[in-house]
Amino acid sequence: MPEQRTKNGKLDTAIRLKTGLIEVAGGSILADLVLKNARYVNVFTGELLQGDIAVFEGYIAGMGIYSGKREIDMNGKILCPGFIDAHIHLESSMVSPWEFARIVLSHGTTAVVTDPHEIANVMGTQGIDYMLQATEGLPVDVFFTVPSCVPASSFDESGASLDYSAIEPYMENPRVVGLAEMMDYPGVVNGSRDALAKLTVSEVYCKQADGHAPGLKEKNLCAYAAAGIYSDHECSSLKEAVDKLRCGQYIMIREGTAARNLVALHALLSMPSYTRCMFCTDDKHPSDLLEKGHMDYICREAVRMGEDPIHAIQAATLHAAQYFGLRNRGAIAPGYIADFAVLEDLKEFQVSAVYKKGRLVWREEREAEFPLPKIDKELQRAAENTFNLPFLQPEKLQVHRAGVIGMVTGEIVTENRGFAEEIDLEKDILKIAVVERHKNTGHVGVGYLQGYGLRQGAVATSIAHDSHNIIAVGTNDRDIAYAVNRVAENKGGVVVACGETIAAELILEVAGLMSGAPLAEVNAKLEEAKRAAHQLGVKDGIDPFMTLSFMSLPVIPEIRITTHGVVDVAKQSLL
Amino acid sequence: MPEQRTKNGKLDTAIRLKTGLIEVAGGSILADLVLKNARYVNVFTGELLQGDIAVFEGYIAGMGIYSGKREIDMNGKILCPGFIDAHIHLESSMVSPWEFARIVLSHGTTAVVTDPHEIANVMGTQGIDYMLQATEGLPVDVFFTVPSCVPASSFDESGASLDYSAIEPYMENPRVVGLAEMMDYPGVVNGSRDALAKLTVSEVYCKQADGHAPGLKEKNLCAYAAAGIYSDHECSSLKEAVDKLRCGQYIMIREGTAARNLVALHALLSMPSYTRCMFCTDDKHPSDLLEKGHMDYICREAVRMGEDPIHAIQAATLHAAQYFGLRNRGAIAPGYIADFAVLEDLKEFQVSAVYKKGRLVWREEREAEFPLPKIDKELQRAAENTFNLPFLQPEKLQVHRAGVIGMVTGEIVTENRGFAEEIDLEKDILKIAVVERHKNTGHVGVGYLQGYGLRQGAVATSIAHDSHNIIAVGTNDRDIAYAVNRVAENKGGVVVACGETIAAELILEVAGLMSGAPLAEVNAKLEEAKRAAHQLGVKDGIDPFMTLSFMSLPVIPEIRITTHGVVDVAKQSLL
Repeated sequence: MPEQRTKNGKLDTAIRLKTGLIEVAGGSILADLVLKNARYVNVFTGELLQGDIAVFEGYIAGMGIYSGKREIDMNGKILCPGFIDAHIHLESSMVSPWEFARIVLSHGTTAVVTDPHEIANVMGTQGIDYMLQATEGLPVDVFFTVPSCVPASSFDESGASLDYSAIEPYMENPRVVGLAEMMDYPGVVNGSRDALAKLTVSEVYCKQADGHAPGLKEKNLCAYAAAGIYSDHECSSLKEAVDKLRCGQYIMIREGTAARNLVALHALLSMPSYTRCMFCTDDKHPSDLLEKGHMDYICREAVRMGEDPIHAIQAATLHAAQYFGLRNRGAIAPGYIADFAVLEDLKEFQVSAVYKKGRLVWREEREAEFPLPKIDKELQRAAENTFNLPFLQPEKLQVHRAGVIGMVTGEIVTENRGFAEEIDLEKDILKIAVVERHKNTGHVGVGYLQGYGLRQGAVATSIAHDSHNIIAVGTNDRDIAYAVNRVAENKGGVVVACGETIAAELILEVAGLMSGAPLAEVNAKLEEAKRAAHQLGVKDGIDPFMTLSFMSLPVIPEIRITTHGVVDVAKQSLL
Repeated sequence: MPEQRTKNGKLDTAIRLKTGLIEVAGGSILADLVLKNARYVNVFTGELLQGDIAVFEGYIAGMGIYSGKREIDMNGKILCPGFIDAHIHLESSMVSPWEFARIVLSHGTTAVVTDPHEIANVMGTQGIDYMLQATEGLPVDVFFTVPSCVPASSFDESGASLDYSAIEPYMENPRVVGLAEMMDYPGVVNGSRDALAKLTVSEVYCKQADGHAPGLKEKNLCAYAAAGIYSDHECSSLKEAVDKLRCGQYIMIREGTAARNLVALHALLSMPSYTRCMFCTDDKHPSDLLEKGHMDYICREAVRMGEDPIHAIQAATLHAAQYFGLRNRGAIAPGYIADFAVLEDLKEFQVSAVYKKGRLVWREEREAEFPLPKIDKELQRAAENTFNLPFLQPEKLQVHRAGVIGMVTGEIVTENRGFAEEIDLEKDILKIAVVERHKNTGHVGVGYLQGYGLRQGAVATSIAHDSHNIIAVGTNDRDIAYAVNRVAENKGGVVVACGETIAAELILEVAGLMSGAPLAEVNAKLEEAKRAAHQLGVKDGIDPFMTLSFMSLPVIPEIRITTHGVVDVAKQSLL
């Protein structure tokens, strides 16, 4: 609503801020804060410069020689713009956005672009609303892309289905910067009206449209780009990335928990088109966040691989801001938001302090307090009550003959291993089930899984891509049913059960995806559950829950399990 | 009005186009046009690639191997995106936008960003409306920045005064891409509410704000940038440009008629920040357009100076599009507009053909026909009747003592040469006058001019920056009055008179700035008038009209002539 904002008060507010910035920049009034003697990264020119940085009301007024009401000597430490994660699903952290922000802030991140795709599959637009409220006013600015593929496939029984008209209202939100990854690339390439309508809506509001098209090339890539899709974060080779750059796509170099492409793609940072490359994580699980960090980790790794640290910082700051049209962000320059990561050096990227809008929010293990976002009670209640399914009787899991999904260690692709008629621990053939949990349909899809390794008991989780029904695997129907019912009773999370008792569990009460507990606690419970699963036999090298969570995603070859049974992905039909 | 555009018909139109592009890109239907065997410049990766370019309904569907209903063999010629002039005042060409487009099209230009500052000083918002209508549907896409400084100075008696509320409605126009050059840099640096309101309005509509701040540096530069001004086209040294880049400004490297900075700035194209640099002309007079060309000329010169031709092309295409947020423009990529300049090589930049939205519009001296824009009759009548002043009696020019403006050959700055009491041809002291012509005030400012060289007669022109009153210089009051009255009678243009007869004249009947005649004709008349002026004594090395037109611009040192008399620019007061 630009009209409203340029009238009366709002215009005055903007002019007042500009006036103050000009006065501070010109030296006629004192800055609120001056970071003295900083070495700072100029991401426009690619230089490391020296000077004072003057801040007024959260914005940078100038660089040069300045005095302020408060002055902090930077002692030659390196100031760089706050980091920006160009694409993440915040739900993957399994904690609240507030908690996520607290953690990544200490790694120098001051803005992220999240795609609330997971929660939208559970709660539809309510899920998007929930995440918007849960991220309002955080010390990390959270921008949104609106999920484009809910559900991910027509085989999915998700909690909601969002067409273009459901998406359009969000495009007016100033925190929404685009349409989220268009995973339905077969749909786009085949001219799906729904996909094209979503892309059109995004264009009309001058927002970006993110891509997701692993391996797409030549004519199909042209078709996908011609539809108006401007980025990709699924490249797994340099050649693929260059092909996409040539087609006008920006490349998000992804280095997250489930997928890591930095080794394959870091050389992009040495190419002339590096200005069209940025960093993202896509997903970050608790242990990964705690042990490695966030964008600081990607910069460190890129430098370790031989890339120019300034180019890495540009990819972690300005380039993402430019791609999404986020003005006055991602750089240290007059009029820009005063978000800084203070680095010890440009090699280890050790973050020693972080400023958000000119406020010191983190410094050497100590963080500033910041309030919890206000979430509507009704929305909170809805988010904590997303399980709607009948009690599962073990008899529902009986099946005579079903497909065998073959796990491939270290991959999320699967193999079609034919059919089985019963659990066979000698052959490592376990029963796998997906239990519909959104709409009380009572649908239960049953099949077999080979390669997981479980010797006794069962494992169940409500993180099951992308519809987030309950997925469970086990050595017997009673334990499977027990684990599923326990997840439902907990209103979400992970359960490891054996002999109808709980071996370990993690409760994820928000939409079955996130916990309200601190990250360290969530991580401890998750690690304990992983250990319990491995003790029951799950193979080394397999993440018992993450790997399982992908077995239900019917868009990755070869076969998957859905609430309807085992699906051939290529044929998009039941086995 | 995004809401309206995503409903019903408009959504369908967009989807239909996307569907067609996808089908052509994927190869399932034939392209409208395929440019076969092209070498083409990929401005994203900086490569010269080889392939077929498939076009559908004016947009590029794909690059690769394609077949089309029409196929044209490019025989190895080089395809580059149509050129974009990032900043020009179209009025400077002295011809209609239609005629301007016809000419620059033959030089490979397919889009320009114009600031209708000259006509707005004459006609206010009607002038902007006129230019919008006069550029609608041309084969060169004309985007607008809205004039920020009408009048240029409070000393100016212009035809209109535009505050922020006059500007705001234009920001909704999709062809408006920003606020035009904020020449009032002293105002910005001193926190002028009017300037800041205009910048705020532009920001609210997510448009750019162009700068104009010659020589501004250090704290004042920070203040100017902090106000939200994102570009500059006034840099005259590499250091100045780098300082501005560091402050986050994009640099427009200007090479036009009145001001030329390529020699000083071309080295920017070899710096890491070249992606933030683009080309512009600012103004292009008839002879310059005819003899040198347009953006092709700047590219050629940049290469001659040793710069990488690909970098020059990027500055002439993609970088301007990106700066102004013009999506799908300035590159050869799927979904992009099919605007191409066909080049013989990357050295001479000889343009042999031009495609606009996939249509061959120019080829080796032959151009396609295109219709004249429709301009409201009332607006046309208003534009051709902008002279509102009383008949000038020679007696009005009598003055006893007035300041002497000293011309500096080859510069537009002037010197304060004290006072004179009468015309003195021995000392080359002529009389100079500015006659108010917008509001019938009868104001006539009179002073003296030294260094122009006229020996007899008088010269008058209605191009007189920035208010475009009638400026005249002469050896006697009768010839001055005669020339001024003749300009008024002609409703604009240039007159050279001697002994109360006309030696030569050019009629510029549109707002006193432009002619409806073809460029060649306008140029011939203008050159004839120049010759006549030189025959009457105007010094070699002085453009009799262009130089004169700057004598009334009271924002360039040291002294100038206004309708009130001679002004000291630094003091902003009458002498």
